[in-house]
Amino acid sequence: MDIQKLGYDSINLGHGSGGLMTRDLLDNMIFNTFSNPFLNQKHDGSIVKFNNPIAISTDSFVVSPIFFKGGNIGELAVNGTVNDVAMCGAIPKYLSLAFIIEEGLKINEFRDILNSIKKAADTSQVQIITGDTKVVERGKGDKIFINTTGFGEVHPKANISTDNIKVGDKIILNGQIAQHGMAIMSQRQGLEFESDIISDTTNLNFLIKDLLDRFGKDIHFFRDPTRGGLSSVLSEIATDINNGILIFENKLPIEKQVAAACEILGLDPLYVANEGVFLTIVEASIADEVVDLMRKDDKGKNAVCIGEITKDHSGKVVMNSHIGGKRIVSPLMGEQLPRIC
Amino acid sequence: MDIQKLGYDSINLGHGSGGLMTRDLLDNMIFNTFSNPFLNQKHDGSIVKFNNPIAISTDSFVVSPIFFKGGNIGELAVNGTVNDVAMCGAIPKYLSLAFIIEEGLKINEFRDILNSIKKAADTSQVQIITGDTKVVERGKGDKIFINTTGFGEVHPKANISTDNIKVGDKIILNGQIAQHGMAIMSQRQGLEFESDIISDTTNLNFLIKDLLDRFGKDIHFFRDPTRGGLSSVLSEIATDINNGILIFENKLPIEKQVAAACEILGLDPLYVANEGVFLTIVEASIADEVVDLMRKDDKGKNAVCIGEITKDHSGKVVMNSHIGGKRIVSPLMGEQLPRIC
Repeated sequence: MDIQKLGYDSINLGHGSGGLMTRDLLDNMIFNTFSNPFLNQKHDGSIVKFNNPIAISTDSFVVSPIFFKGGNIGELAVNGTVNDVAMCGAIPKYLSLAFIIEEGLKINEFRDILNSIKKAADTSQVQIITGDTKVVERGKGDKIFINTTGFGEVHPKANISTDNIKVGDKIILNGQIAQHGMAIMSQRQGLEFESDIISDTTNLNFLIKDLLDRFGKDIHFFRDPTRGGLSSVLSEIATDINNGILIFENKLPIEKQVAAACEILGLDPLYVANEGVFLTIVEASIADEVVDLMRKDDKGKNAVCIGEITKDHSGKVVMNSHIGGKRIVSPLMGEQLPRIC
Repeated sequence: MDIQKLGYDSINLGHGSGGLMTRDLLDNMIFNTFSNPFLNQKHDGSIVKFNNPIAISTDSFVVSPIFFKGGNIGELAVNGTVNDVAMCGAIPKYLSLAFIIEEGLKINEFRDILNSIKKAADTSQVQIITGDTKVVERGKGDKIFINTTGFGEVHPKANISTDNIKVGDKIILNGQIAQHGMAIMSQRQGLEFESDIISDTTNLNFLIKDLLDRFGKDIHFFRDPTRGGLSSVLSEIATDINNGILIFENKLPIEKQVAAACEILGLDPLYVANEGVFLTIVEASIADEVVDLMRKDDKGKNAVCIGEITKDHSGKVVMNSHIGGKRIVSPLMGEQLPRIC
């Protein structure tokens, strides 16, 4: 991937033509980064075999800026989809990878993104098995958008569904909220403020696997509160289960600096996007053990039980606040922070 | 999907927030269009079971204009990926569907696209099982980009690989070339010219299945020459097999009006994109039967053997021209028609 050898230092429309320039980009940048027997067939698709039911999830990533504190769009595109597959109770195994690149993207930036994708895929033990590269004219995109679709075998002990959630179940969070959203905010054009907040983007698949290995069907639900934050995910669950959700404000894990940044900008951390956070809803009897297991893992070291499923206030999320009162947590209405992932 | 009831007539950033507006868009436009047990779970992913190896293919669609003669970006996004899965020798079954929408897209246009997706999916007998919707600011996208990733079970009799292609094999095309590219060109801003050329976008999966049912492993290869046209696909194959390819110019099926339009614009139809065309490379002994079977199908009614695999000029595509001479067909270098699919 020597730019001198490539003969171009930015992506142009020819790279999306399907002709020799596309082939050149694929051979010199993509295939040699992700080389594996699936991709090396260089066909338009790949053939894989699964022995168990598979979970499939897709996401397009349009985060801006594409490089941010703690990560970049490439890493996010791998972790985000790996986590979505894991949240179905599955072991992520393969990803497809599709780029929409705006003409003019610097090859150096593209290379850094590809390297991050490779590193994140290796960390999660997933392989990139098929892909696509399109190029749009200047001003018709924004540097780069990435779609990943992920596939994984459902864990033999998993049974993840809102149907399993019942009154008395405990809601456990693995870590501190609002980091990703505030990291992006701190870098947004026109919104820059001093902060060391870094995105929490990471892969959660191994912690999910450990939980399923140990607790199996006593784990009723997983979900990662990305766009829309914790409040939106909790509200959706409350709507789906026809029971209520009660959470405790003083249990919500949030890093001091993140809380301060939210306060400065007038944002409620419950609505701010996360990338390395998930919630699990479990049998009350195993809740303490779940928290213990999580805390032994670096990705769950701030794990805490934040609430429970209640018979009261069906379809609503209620929060016991710091100052003793109760308030209803509404879902996010419109847009708080566009293009957060 | 009554706009009065929706309360908005275009997509705005709030629809990509992950909050209530996203949910509203999903419930009122997407879930009720594609309703099926997979999507109705409303989780971030879906679980499916396959008994055979599966073929997976992904494509992002960025065609401009999004509505063109003979189709639109939605229909294209279904047919394109259905065909890519079929070209692997598989029976397409499921699609994921991810939108990147530019703020301001008219709801009417989005609805038409969704309806086309639904219709095309039904025609191909594939289900939309999971999806994603992102919204970017005005001027950071171009109306709508669509990613589809497709999954299908490999046909039990299929063995599709360039490894199987050998000297003497015949190359058969199902239909007339260059239609899709010329249909798009005829509508491009600044390039409009009078023509009734319509895109050939269609699903090819059932014809592929019929061929595999009947001829099994005597079919060595399938490929649809989309971006880059027939010349690029043939050149790629020639490079991969280390033998030569010989094609006959007078056999190339091309509709008169399309040929005339190419001539007016100075375009070589061999380099113009197709959407409803595929080539198959087969045992010489079955070539006539393959053509006969294709011609009985509306999607193969112009089927013809256009050439063969040769020992000579390894790695190159040579064309016997109308006027008797031979010329080398080079692959497309850079961009002829940007954003054709």
